[in-house]
Amino acid sequence: MTNALRLGIAGLGTVGVGVVRILRKQAKLLEARTGRRIEIIAVSARDADKDRGVTLSGYDWETDPVALARRDDIDVFVELMGGSEGAAKAATEAALSTGKHVVTANKALLALHGQALAEQAEAAGLSIRYEAAVAGGIPVIKSLAEGLAGNEITRVMGVMNGTCNYILTRMEATGQGYNALFEEADKLGFLEADPNLDVGGIDASHKLAILASIAFGTKVNFAGVEIEGIQRVTLEDIRQAADMGYRIKLLGVAQRSPRGLVQRMQPCLVPANSPLGQLEGGTNMVVIEGDAVEQIVLRGPGAGEGPTASAVLGDICDLARGCRMPVFGQPAVTLADATPAQTGLPAPYYLRMSLLDKPGALAKIAAILGEAGVSIDRMRQYSHSETTAPVLIVTHKTTPAALEHALEAMAVTDVVASEPVALRIEQI
Amino acid sequence: MTNALRLGIAGLGTVGVGVVRILRKQAKLLEARTGRRIEIIAVSARDADKDRGVTLSGYDWETDPVALARRDDIDVFVELMGGSEGAAKAATEAALSTGKHVVTANKALLALHGQALAEQAEAAGLSIRYEAAVAGGIPVIKSLAEGLAGNEITRVMGVMNGTCNYILTRMEATGQGYNALFEEADKLGFLEADPNLDVGGIDASHKLAILASIAFGTKVNFAGVEIEGIQRVTLEDIRQAADMGYRIKLLGVAQRSPRGLVQRMQPCLVPANSPLGQLEGGTNMVVIEGDAVEQIVLRGPGAGEGPTASAVLGDICDLARGCRMPVFGQPAVTLADATPAQTGLPAPYYLRMSLLDKPGALAKIAAILGEAGVSIDRMRQYSHSETTAPVLIVTHKTTPAALEHALEAMAVTDVVASEPVALRIEQI
Repeated sequence: MTNALRLGIAGLGTVGVGVVRILRKQAKLLEARTGRRIEIIAVSARDADKDRGVTLSGYDWETDPVALARRDDIDVFVELMGGSEGAAKAATEAALSTGKHVVTANKALLALHGQALAEQAEAAGLSIRYEAAVAGGIPVIKSLAEGLAGNEITRVMGVMNGTCNYILTRMEATGQGYNALFEEADKLGFLEADPNLDVGGIDASHKLAILASIAFGTKVNFAGVEIEGIQRVTLEDIRQAADMGYRIKLLGVAQRSPRGLVQRMQPCLVPANSPLGQLEGGTNMVVIEGDAVEQIVLRGPGAGEGPTASAVLGDICDLARGCRMPVFGQPAVTLADATPAQTGLPAPYYLRMSLLDKPGALAKIAAILGEAGVSIDRMRQYSHSETTAPVLIVTHKTTPAALEHALEAMAVTDVVASEPVALRIEQI
Repeated sequence: MTNALRLGIAGLGTVGVGVVRILRKQAKLLEARTGRRIEIIAVSARDADKDRGVTLSGYDWETDPVALARRDDIDVFVELMGGSEGAAKAATEAALSTGKHVVTANKALLALHGQALAEQAEAAGLSIRYEAAVAGGIPVIKSLAEGLAGNEITRVMGVMNGTCNYILTRMEATGQGYNALFEEADKLGFLEADPNLDVGGIDASHKLAILASIAFGTKVNFAGVEIEGIQRVTLEDIRQAADMGYRIKLLGVAQRSPRGLVQRMQPCLVPANSPLGQLEGGTNMVVIEGDAVEQIVLRGPGAGEGPTASAVLGDICDLARGCRMPVFGQPAVTLADATPAQTGLPAPYYLRMSLLDKPGALAKIAAILGEAGVSIDRMRQYSHSETTAPVLIVTHKTTPAALEHALEAMAVTDVVASEPVALRIEQI
């Protein structure tokens, strides 16, 4: 155990530079904690000449990450390039096929190819570790797969895209609309090159699919996530929700139902005074519920050089200490198929609509809800200007199917001025 | 790796029964996750005939926990008896001297004898794991020692005694005083046999000393914790603090200072809108700050059968999977002495006092603070009845020494009606 752990690092963007910086600055501390020197042997990135603010001269430079992954003088391939296909995938496969463990921050790669990669790794007795892929600096993979290994997990949920949470909390704080805050986030550099990864909920859904696999012992199934982004969240709904004691969050929820696995990523209402409701700005939060532990809440920075590098280092230290785990918490070949539940679990809903100023309009809506089996918990009609009246309804627990049925019936009445907004209220 | 992991469990109180229950109920899940069967070989408790609501007939019964620990047919000794001396200590030592790993929930044992036990274990190549000893179901030991191993930890703090937090939050909610809520907690069975362990801050300080050792690479030093319990917290201060935007919590803080290690357990003010400020009832919270990760907040149940058993099971699963760690995150023989800082780090303070109704009384207090170098951030004098006037002061950051100096000077004036209350405001 006194031989060094030798790393090859592919990708020297923000996270890669952060990892190199910690390995240089904390070399003694890391050796004290793991009992081994941790050495960078070689690195790889697109531009060898760029000044990254950190000394790289002691390391071999590889232009091709696949060549880096294949080197026989490294023990661990650290993949920090990103992207689910191309170089990241090829290099990860090359590392596994030549006997290296892999540490990665790549959520897209794992969400789309996690099962195949895990099978390849485990067949060769190798580890893939990816703490940095989910919720930045929060040790959520470790907590779920190791700390809570004695639990049958009942629900995992979280706010796992800082940019979306930034936009939503700034909408409430500033009174500006979605488009203005999207532009602000863009100017601040908070958005991915393809912003739909953020605001469309894709990035957060990659993370949710990974957590669901560990939590429920199922093959990671990104295609099974029902995804809705934040693009249609309006200032009006944020304000009305606040008025009723809720906040709107882009919330990912994974849960087993009698009919299969539920994986949803969508704007939801959560109680304003709950930990999720109180989450501001770019911070992430994951809530894990298990039959023994009840509920654990983990909160921390979801991105950034230091926090993400911290997560990568945690994985590297585990490998240096000799801890080996199945990639998704149990051997990949034993994971079950994640059959998506065709219908979601019941929940209360928030409904907002504009009714035309006609006699009996509200009665008609109430009747439609009643016929669909949707019962009303609270209702508010606001004083109306001109020809339409805004109405807010919070329902009791209802099935998504019953709600859908009611919304369809409303659409063909002559009293609704525009398509009603319906948002799930997640009970915490 | 296909041989079973064989357990001997000493102590069948709430936690012990919870552990047995999970091992029986989740046997298949645990085997899938760890790759090994986990078997209870023998148990030990005071009363063999008591009905504990769980079947024990398949296990050998030992009346003496030391004899259980010495059995050569177990791999792991699970110590759930509690108490820093006597049987728990003797049995733990016996387990280590006969080649067994130890899993324990015993914070007192580790806080007082952790260094010697860790040295004994590590010399024999054995592990001692104790996730359940700190903050119940929250995987805080794992997060700190493994997940955040790449960080230089800068501060660890937390609310780690649910009973104290219950009493303090109930005082605010009900308007009842400390004594009434102490009695309520007693009736609900929330108090240890020696209630001073809870309300005197001892139990929480055991936990803080353990966290500080891992965080700062120092020998666990319970004697070095400055401890003040919640017995002197008044309803008046809870209300005034709330009025200024704060809540009073029994907060443990460990931090390195230029003069040594600071370990404090004392009632502190924290911002009411911070995660710590919002923590209600028996829930625990630990905040970990590191140079890379910035700040992680972990929240969950601090006690109870399920949550504590969940933590014990996490440790057992790690041992089953073959993960081995130094007890306090780095080899015990390399841990530094935890020299207590003789003086605390600067902080703002909350001061409440009653001034006698004399001309110039407030001016005298302001002058004393100024002379001691303590500057005032906010001050309120309330309209006074009869002969005394209540005064509240929030200071700017000041050293505990300067504040002490000012308080001593106030005591010898003729304007202060009773000893001023001074509470630290912890900045988060």
